[in-house]
Amino acid sequence: MSGNTFGRVFRLTTFGESHGPALGGVVDGCPAGIPLAEAMIQRELDRRKPGGSLTSTTRQEPDTVRLLSGIFEGRTTGTPIGFMIENTCQRSTDYDALKHLFRPGHADVTYQAKYGLRDHRGGGRSSGRETACRVAGGAVAQELLATSGIRVTACCVELGGIPAAELDHDGALSRPFFAATDGVVPAWEARAREAVSAGDSLGGIVEVAATGVPAGLGEPVFDKLDARLASAFMGVGAVKGVEIGAGFAAARLTGSHNNDPLVPAGTALVTNNAGGILGGISCGWPIVVRAAVKPIASIARPQPTIDTDGNPATIVVGGRHDRSAIPRIVPVLKAMMLLTLADFLLLQRRMD
Amino acid sequence: MSGNTFGRVFRLTTFGESHGPALGGVVDGCPAGIPLAEAMIQRELDRRKPGGSLTSTTRQEPDTVRLLSGIFEGRTTGTPIGFMIENTCQRSTDYDALKHLFRPGHADVTYQAKYGLRDHRGGGRSSGRETACRVAGGAVAQELLATSGIRVTACCVELGGIPAAELDHDGALSRPFFAATDGVVPAWEARAREAVSAGDSLGGIVEVAATGVPAGLGEPVFDKLDARLASAFMGVGAVKGVEIGAGFAAARLTGSHNNDPLVPAGTALVTNNAGGILGGISCGWPIVVRAAVKPIASIARPQPTIDTDGNPATIVVGGRHDRSAIPRIVPVLKAMMLLTLADFLLLQRRMD
Amino acid sequence: MSGNTFGRVFRLTTFGESHGPALGGVVDGCPAGIPLAEAMIQRELDRRKPGGSLTSTTRQEPDTVRLLSGIFEGRTTGTPIGFMIENTCQRSTDYDALKHLFRPGHADVTYQAKYGLRDHRGGGRSSGRETACRVAGGAVAQELLATSGIRVTACCVELGGIPAAELDHDGALSRPFFAATDGVVPAWEARAREAVSAGDSLGGIVEVAATGVPAGLGEPVFDKLDARLASAFMGVGAVKGVEIGAGFAAARLTGSHNNDPLVPAGTALVTNNAGGILGGISCGWPIVVRAAVKPIASIARPQPTIDTDGNPATIVVGGRHDRSAIPRIVPVLKAMMLLTLADFLLLQRRMD
Amino acid sequence: MSGNTFGRVFRLTTFGESHGPALGGVVDGCPAGIPLAEAMIQRELDRRKPGGSLTSTTRQEPDTVRLLSGIFEGRTTGTPIGFMIENTCQRSTDYDALKHLFRPGHADVTYQAKYGLRDHRGGGRSSGRETACRVAGGAVAQELLATSGIRVTACCVELGGIPAAELDHDGALSRPFFAATDGVVPAWEARAREAVSAGDSLGGIVEVAATGVPAGLGEPVFDKLDARLASAFMGVGAVKGVEIGAGFAAARLTGSHNNDPLVPAGTALVTNNAGGILGGISCGWPIVVRAAVKPIASIARPQPTIDTDGNPATIVVGGRHDRSAIPRIVPVLKAMMLLTLADFLLLQRRMD
Repeated sequence: MSGNTFGRVFRLTTFGESHGPALGGVVDGCPAGIPLAEAMIQRELDRRKPGGSLTSTTRQEPDTVRLLSGIFEGRTTGTPIGFMIENTCQRSTDYDALKHLFRPGHADVTYQAKYGLRDHRGGGRSSGRETACRVAGGAVAQELLATSGIRVTACCVELGGIPAAELDHDGALSRPFFAATDGVVPAWEARAREAVSAGDSLGGIVEVAATGVPAGLGEPVFDKLDARLASAFMGVGAVKGVEIGAGFAAARLTGSHNNDPLVPAGTALVTNNAGGILGGISCGWPIVVRAAVKPIASIARPQPTIDTDGNPATIVVGGRHDRSAIPRIVPVLKAMMLLTLADFLLLQRRMD
Repeated sequence: MSGNTFGRVFRLTTFGESHGPALGGVVDGCPAGIPLAEAMIQRELDRRKPGGSLTSTTRQEPDTVRLLSGIFEGRTTGTPIGFMIENTCQRSTDYDALKHLFRPGHADVTYQAKYGLRDHRGGGRSSGRETACRVAGGAVAQELLATSGIRVTACCVELGGIPAAELDHDGALSRPFFAATDGVVPAWEARAREAVSAGDSLGGIVEVAATGVPAGLGEPVFDKLDARLASAFMGVGAVKGVEIGAGFAAARLTGSHNNDPLVPAGTALVTNNAGGILGGISCGWPIVVRAAVKPIASIARPQPTIDTDGNPATIVVGGRHDRSAIPRIVPVLKAMMLLTLADFLLLQRRMD
Repeated sequence: MSGNTFGRVFRLTTFGESHGPALGGVVDGCPAGIPLAEAMIQRELDRRKPGGSLTSTTRQEPDTVRLLSGIFEGRTTGTPIGFMIENTCQRSTDYDALKHLFRPGHADVTYQAKYGLRDHRGGGRSSGRETACRVAGGAVAQELLATSGIRVTACCVELGGIPAAELDHDGALSRPFFAATDGVVPAWEARAREAVSAGDSLGGIVEVAATGVPAGLGEPVFDKLDARLASAFMGVGAVKGVEIGAGFAAARLTGSHNNDPLVPAGTALVTNNAGGILGGISCGWPIVVRAAVKPIASIARPQPTIDTDGNPATIVVGGRHDRSAIPRIVPVLKAMMLLTLADFLLLQRRMD
Repeated sequence: MSGNTFGRVFRLTTFGESHGPALGGVVDGCPAGIPLAEAMIQRELDRRKPGGSLTSTTRQEPDTVRLLSGIFEGRTTGTPIGFMIENTCQRSTDYDALKHLFRPGHADVTYQAKYGLRDHRGGGRSSGRETACRVAGGAVAQELLATSGIRVTACCVELGGIPAAELDHDGALSRPFFAATDGVVPAWEARAREAVSAGDSLGGIVEVAATGVPAGLGEPVFDKLDARLASAFMGVGAVKGVEIGAGFAAARLTGSHNNDPLVPAGTALVTNNAGGILGGISCGWPIVVRAAVKPIASIARPQPTIDTDGNPATIVVGGRHDRSAIPRIVPVLKAMMLLTLADFLLLQRRMD
């Protein structure tokens, strides 16, 4: 009920704060026999590491994962997979100035309201660092899905209001910002430099796609595949919007333009406005989801706010912060797609 | 696991097809002592009835609700509230022509893939008629929330690509299309006539807002309030996108423009780009959610498709269909907000 | 969280009080294609009807079930199966004398503590009448299990301290008290007459067995098959003890006597002290569970108690009551075995 | 769905095998502000350590717990509490002889049936070692319950068929076998020596009691407090029977003897045949649960069995094993009571 578990059949439970001994989690429900090693998880975690772009923090977090259970001779055994990531880099003093002020756009004020207390040192469970455990869980899901030929990719399609002209998911991993194209990178770098020098921050749009997803995943009423994906994506901090396929653009089309013609098997799709989901159930086409990522709330400019007594105040947020959730959010959103699909895949197997 | 239950503490389980004896549901977890009568539910159901606008079907579905349990002397008793809606108007023959063809944009093809069979007579559980049970459950939630001073309103803010210039939630119930303003109605009526005469259909955007929501609802990780809302909204057929507060527009702002200044209690908000949710938890401001509604898939024009053997075919969908999910989807989306808030409200009470 | 839903994959949600319009429920998760008709459910309900023995109430409750959804042409469709049983025989005035007194051995005092109010007219959800919905749900499970060759039987093996000498499950349905043997019936009838004439009530022991259960059902840790069965049985009012196989007697054996020798497939078992479950997982042998049923709390003799103000008082419980939960509890406990096995069977299919 | 999580609001998820790097778990849902330190958990774990009696293994398992998250300055923060216990003492070679044989009374044969593979080195998740994580989780629950004045005690009331004449829970922690009285210890020691010298094993009965439990915990239908307790206890390996209050003895009483008179507040109870639970809900009296513990299946005598090809064989189980689950199961059953009560306590707070 506290919402630290994701999934129904393939379940990830996470724990840990950025300022305690360790973060970690338990993947429960992964079938036996899936190839798995720490290196497969580490590779995904490394993609979430800071330092990959102009927008990211200078903190060094090695995020080294250790597998504690559920593996025997390089394969899963069907028992719960426990893992942990020791915390090694904590500078709590960075946060002392924030003890009596609420940061605008942050969870400070809502945590205080909910719990009657808050850990001002890094945000506790609302810290972006919690997402490392999602990436680790997603890496396990990725290996499971690979055995069924399902592949998930992700890229940034817009940054600071500048969209990429085309989409090339496959090359994104090697580009700055995990950008959708090479061509847009210089404009994004200029935009990022401008924002950083203004002490400001940027938002953007991330697209995640899955290929090889069989038709039939999803439930017809409340547990539609797109409903679960929307929850998975919106459950990542900084995401303020989610759309499937044509999404908000579909609202402006007529039915005759929005309906994707059905084509015989083996024939190229005409359009994929549905984003691969009809009536909440996958139809065998690529699943396409986009998330709107707000500009990061920690900016290096004075902002009007209130203190913990409710009086007006001005705040300047120090510390070592990313200047955009992009690109580090990209592997996190990819992980949420992986976790969701793994859960539905196992759920559907029961019915086959 | 079949996804016919919504919520964790305030739970709605629904059953029923449009072509069986009845639809109905069970609301479990509603506290004792809440005033409730069939008339309160019927009033909400009547708002989902066809006939209210140029876009809606000419079918007559009285949707008369009957309460079966959980009420004593006009108040809830804390036990499960069973209800049913008898089916009275079924013209299955309307659907005979569709037995061997898959309709584009519909769940026909995915149902076939998932279950190996499908009920071609009205869509079974994927029928829009299933949403009557959501509206009934939402009406119970509405009475519960009213006892805490929480009020939910909804209106259509865009139809066929034409946005309303302003937003007046309060007057929407009495306007055609549950429109956000009086002024936009003539343009929407013209657009609707045009679409109907072209045998085509329209999409739009619906906004749902909640006032009086206390700070502190929501969980910090996977069960963020906005994550659950996104799932609730995307779980309604025809919805292809969900956004909170500034939503996709926030992705184009810088942090200094997107961050809402925190103001002392009793002071007017400067902005509400957050849509009332910070870090997944309500902050006491109005909750604002918008859904992108695709144009309805049943259009009166020939469309390329495939038959149940996978061969190319042409389909013309007959029957009595809405020409837009708007306005009938408006009370359904309102119900999803009500159900979600009731669930979080009861969950939070546990911690207080 | 209110505990009106049983099961994870094959789920039964029930609603209804004995003094409202109707009882009913929803079976969610039953696969498509299972033969099902109202008559199959009615047959099981009729076994729970009063009037079958010396110990049962003279109330007439026809308990006629009506299926509302989920069936098409005599088979399940995979969608939720809604059903209802109208209440027709309510004599609330029987209960007026109890308005200001708590009955010993009943839930009166705990309901008052939990809810701050109680419905003194028949016990609300703690009424034995609620179990009719379990029997209906169990009847659906029975049809599902039959397609896998699983068969569940139940009989009374002890009444009023008099055990049956042997066990013949197959003939129990046609015997008074659903007795385990013909031979014990005269002694039980004498014991029952004696108790009734003394205004007293009797307890007993019920055994439920399942044959044809494949090896492999159950989970190794918290969700052991026997753990779920124990919960299912103890969740029926009047049950105060549950044992599997040799049960409490096993606690007095040494390992060399209690261990059941493993035998080659097709060979007769030597012993079944395990009751068909090893390490929480079925081993392919008959599953055997016994429940201790306390004497019914409503007796026709003056009893010391307290009134609703907490003062000492004397109570004489009137109304038309059973004098033992046996035999009417027998089909209810059978239903709990059926529901539990159906749930595990579907859960396991996912892994095959 | 894999059953590695216990509870609904106060939730324990466990992971780990006896032959992997570590065991551990996550306690999710514990409120903020509860005093908690590793020493409080370690003390309970030490009570499960081998070596405390004539019946226990000579293996040395230090079971040192490490807290990973959820604690700040000696108190819980309301976030998930991760913990781990490193494995340090593994002699897998002890198990080599068992690779091709199924042990009678063990989960070997059912694991093979369920998973198609089994880890013959110590039982994997069916190992008794898994219960260390339950004890750790129970220790957290104990601190939570202490803040509400709830106290749980446990003792062994019967061993090898020899019952203790009286019950003194308070002194049990300092007695061999956690015995219910001093007087019975010599007879149990003689019985244990006899069994060990015969290469055999013993069963017994454990009683767990809770005082200070407020009236009102439990739900009226499927989630009765006793139903959840029965599941919790039967979910511990070696338990074959569970009873509440008078339990199986109640089945032999008449209602006039079994009904506990209700007495004014502050007055001594006359009887507690109900074991503190009426209609599935606590009534404010002591909660009393007993578990039948079968003799441990690993005995040092040749036993008839089958090999992994299904052929008849003889097995002699080597390795370092307990000769009775008693006394080491006593803190485990206590933990299950603690976990169950913590869950219901938090669930009920929501309704207050």
